[in-house]
Amino acid sequence: MTATSVQPPQGDQPESPHGAVGGTATLAEIARAAGVSAPTVSKVLNGRGDVAPATRSKVEELLRRHGYQRRRGSVQPAPLIDLVFHELESSWAMEVIRGVENVARDEGLSVVLSESAGRLSPGQTWVDGVLARRPTGVILVLSGLEAAQRAQLTSRDIPFVVLDPAGDPGEDVPAIGATNWQGGVAATRHLLELGHRRIGVIGGPSGIMCSRARIDGYRAALETAGIAFDPDLVRLGTFHHEAGYAEGLALLRMPDRPTAIFTGNDIQALGLYEAARELGLRIPHHVSVVGFDDLPVARWISPPLTTVRQPLTEMAEAAARLVVDLSRGRQPSTLRVDLATRLVERASSAAPRD
Amino acid sequence: MTATSVQPPQGDQPESPHGAVGGTATLAEIARAAGVSAPTVSKVLNGRGDVAPATRSKVEELLRRHGYQRRRGSVQPAPLIDLVFHELESSWAMEVIRGVENVARDEGLSVVLSESAGRLSPGQTWVDGVLARRPTGVILVLSGLEAAQRAQLTSRDIPFVVLDPAGDPGEDVPAIGATNWQGGVAATRHLLELGHRRIGVIGGPSGIMCSRARIDGYRAALETAGIAFDPDLVRLGTFHHEAGYAEGLALLRMPDRPTAIFTGNDIQALGLYEAARELGLRIPHHVSVVGFDDLPVARWISPPLTTVRQPLTEMAEAAARLVVDLSRGRQPSTLRVDLATRLVERASSAAPRD
Repeated sequence: MTATSVQPPQGDQPESPHGAVGGTATLAEIARAAGVSAPTVSKVLNGRGDVAPATRSKVEELLRRHGYQRRRGSVQPAPLIDLVFHELESSWAMEVIRGVENVARDEGLSVVLSESAGRLSPGQTWVDGVLARRPTGVILVLSGLEAAQRAQLTSRDIPFVVLDPAGDPGEDVPAIGATNWQGGVAATRHLLELGHRRIGVIGGPSGIMCSRARIDGYRAALETAGIAFDPDLVRLGTFHHEAGYAEGLALLRMPDRPTAIFTGNDIQALGLYEAARELGLRIPHHVSVVGFDDLPVARWISPPLTTVRQPLTEMAEAAARLVVDLSRGRQPSTLRVDLATRLVERASSAAPRD
Repeated sequence: MTATSVQPPQGDQPESPHGAVGGTATLAEIARAAGVSAPTVSKVLNGRGDVAPATRSKVEELLRRHGYQRRRGSVQPAPLIDLVFHELESSWAMEVIRGVENVARDEGLSVVLSESAGRLSPGQTWVDGVLARRPTGVILVLSGLEAAQRAQLTSRDIPFVVLDPAGDPGEDVPAIGATNWQGGVAATRHLLELGHRRIGVIGGPSGIMCSRARIDGYRAALETAGIAFDPDLVRLGTFHHEAGYAEGLALLRMPDRPTAIFTGNDIQALGLYEAARELGLRIPHHVSVVGFDDLPVARWISPPLTTVRQPLTEMAEAAARLVVDLSRGRQPSTLRVDLATRLVERASSAAPRD
């Protein structure tokens, strides 16, 4: 890194009323501070490959320090929306893609799809690609951006929105989510109302905020019903089928097994179904199950799954509309919107046997 | 349309040894014939919006008639692959997306995703977008291109590949498929070997060639086993859950109902499961089921589904590699490759009850 060799810009850089919106320096001033030509700074801004790495680092650092921001309208963005998943798994992703496509089609935009290969933030190669193709906006699904990446997009005036953030995206990051905590409350209250008292939960990875919120909702529903939270009944795993199966087996093999289980998503519920079958337990006769998401498959399995509907397509549409609005310079009245979840009752939940 | 007002180019256009590969005219000659400037032809080639529609039509028509083809390497393509679905449904599409992403990532390309909104060929708006962004190549999933659209891509030297064609894509169109006919044979032979003699089939839409091939395979397996083909046992519908349910109900309500059913895909099989449940019939006790595709959900449902595995991710990888090869001027040894399907036996198929 060349950050230490870069002179702090304060003092020797005059405030400039033109050339940057919200920033303090023009492109020419950045070039002077970096000791390079203005076209070289322009190349870095446009993600061109023909700039030496050390020069690029130096320019990026100066852009960041000066809070440089390209003038809106100075460069026509490409009619593209970048959509990044940390993992392209299951029909969950398909619901999101469909929502973004719906808005993109209406707006005459095409969707560029990327996967951050399981990491929670996309790699630098991806950022370079985004800078080079200058999309109208970026939607990150369950992925965060590192501070340096955010600064790079901001300096190029490329707006971004986070969908259903895995972590805390920061208060100044536009984000669309779902009411996960309320969903956890609704799922658990439904089971309590059926008469269950010993309710297990299978969650997603502990670093994923939406999963934590669901489990907190579960806990809140239990405690407000006067039932002590029992950490032995909480199992965490990935959001995949295998985790639902493995953690489901663990819960159902307990000597005093739960009479109902709330899973982190529908795919985990499918794994739990398999665990119950393997142990000769019937759903909902021996154990009630409530999922989360309401993917199409939730209606198709046997018994059809009671689940908390997360409006994934609508959330994706909202994120796409937000990023298009931001690209047109319209600031939203609020940077964070959570769409409502709601319980969908089907046949996998029933009163416990006496 | 202005096609009738265009003079046939034969006779007044000299053959040109340079400026076009495989074509007969240079850009300047096209411009002269159209009565416009060379930069105007260039704008049309680049999908720019600032050309009058009538002029554009005239230039496109001349490009097509002359078989104009842009010199390879004369324009650097964008590091993008365009991937078009006729319908973004189910995890089927997700398997394909994952395959294309795998190759794109290795090649430093990004994937632009489009949906042709249920039509079997994408609209002109999509083609204009492709011309403007000049991707490295185009992959069409279950979608065909109209002759005029093909001519537009060819004249811009944008290669395209069809994945699992819905219709007959033409012998000169590079295409990746699966051995659908053999899959139909394998599914039906499996049921015959279990002892079934009355085997129903639910197919996809009759215009979809892969579905016809599967049903032809079913018929071939029956007839080579000495069992007469009974058209009453063949039901066609969409590839969706609803069709599997509706056609499944129709087959299972027959006075002499089939003891086994081969469905057009796994999602239809899920619908058939629901129809069987509704009629109080157990799988495989009362009716055996064999699906097609082997989506992840096939393993997760109860009973786990016997199905014909279609290697969707591998097919998508092959299509992406092929289009990248074509973009580099490498001609494949064969334009059409079908990857093998294979039967995956699970618990939804068993011998018929006596």
